[in-house]
Amino acid sequence: MADLMENEVLRAFATYAAIVIVKMMLMGPITAYFRVTRGAFAHEEDVARKSAEEKKKLLRTDPEVERVRRCHLNDLENIVPFVVVGLLYALTRPELSTALLHFRIFAGTRIVHTIAYILVLPHFCRGLPYILGMLVTLSMVYRVLSTALIL
Amino acid sequence: MADLMENEVLRAFATYAAIVIVKMMLMGPITAYFRVTRGAFAHEEDVARKSAEEKKKLLRTDPEVERVRRCHLNDLENIVPFVVVGLLYALTRPELSTALLHFRIFAGTRIVHTIAYILVLPHFCRGLPYILGMLVTLSMVYRVLSTALIL
Amino acid sequence: MADLMENEVLRAFATYAAIVIVKMMLMGPITAYFRVTRGAFAHEEDVARKSAEEKKKLLRTDPEVERVRRCHLNDLENIVPFVVVGLLYALTRPELSTALLHFRIFAGTRIVHTIAYILVLPHFCRGLPYILGMLVTLSMVYRVLSTALIL
Repeated sequence: MADLMENEVLRAFATYAAIVIVKMMLMGPITAYFRVTRGAFAHEEDVARKSAEEKKKLLRTDPEVERVRRCHLNDLENIVPFVVVGLLYALTRPELSTALLHFRIFAGTRIVHTIAYILVLPHFCRGLPYILGMLVTLSMVYRVLSTALIL
Repeated sequence: MADLMENEVLRAFATYAAIVIVKMMLMGPITAYFRVTRGAFAHEEDVARKSAEEKKKLLRTDPEVERVRRCHLNDLENIVPFVVVGLLYALTRPELSTALLHFRIFAGTRIVHTIAYILVLPHFCRGLPYILGMLVTLSMVYRVLSTALIL
Repeated sequence: MADLMENEVLRAFATYAAIVIVKMMLMGPITAYFRVTRGAFAHEEDVARKSAEEKKKLLRTDPEVERVRRCHLNDLENIVPFVVVGLLYALTRPELSTALLHFRIFAGTRIVHTIAYILVLPHFCRGLPYILGMLVTLSMVYRVLSTALIL
């Protein structure tokens, strides 16, 4: 397999794939932060040092923690399709500028989506980036299928 | 990296990976459809325009919505292994016909699985495709490990 | 695309990707095992043959089943970044020994993480592998970005 360095579209894909994956990974520590500050844990062993009474209070679900967890799941549901389709798309030899346009818009939508989700901004601040990101992935799907189709 | 177009197995993989990924992405709009028609939302901002009384009624979990969400999660749990292992499998230069057999069966099982899940068909209509899809992925894992193994 | 067999780092990646993906796939049958032994099902059709009274008792959430499901989700949240970044990392032509170090530590952390999660070991038995696995992925992200960066 040739060197990643030789193909500029693949390098651009690697850059943006790394960015959105790191953004997704950040949701783990953010969930932990909300669990600690809101005092809402999911497992007995996470509050092992507390008194029995405190444990009862700490082992609960919290709406804000659940919000962050749903945001994380939404990332999985959308970023996984992007990285899978994006890699195949990069292998179809698109123009670098066209590819960059796809990758940049997608990364932008996911960052806006996360901010809107966590800061509880009005629905469309989360809904529009969600739909736009999906359209970017579908545009790459179209290119992959029209280039590669073997059924 | 060579052109995607030159390798028929990789083209077949790209085709079926795109199909199952698009099927998985469809679960997002389907969830939204169930949320709207069943009147069951997860976030305050999604019902911002409603009266306080309506909000209370709309911010709830609904068994049908949760069913679609579990189906979506099941897709993630099974389609992600397929696309990861499938790509590596395609790089081991299998026969095109053998590869197509794997890809077609897997895509078929996931489509049947989703229909059975959402239409609440008897358990085995969902269970058999689940197991069969898993066996397809494991068969590709076997090929990858027997070809590539470096521990 | 060149043969998978010709690139040792890619073969090592394929090996460890297959291992962690199979580990993740195992969570499905483990969830089923807990559902059956704890008598806690999520769907009407999964308990179709039982009497009406039994159904009521069996359609419930169980803390142990939910624990296994959270472990499965945690796998998705961490193994997906590893396989995506790991593939791109393998394409940057790292030293085989360095790559193997990354892959081995990551696979080890996820196996320890799962055991600690399911056997309800003290929090740090699950927390430390989680953080260590994340650092391995971030180390590969650093290599990918410093080799491939095109913004």
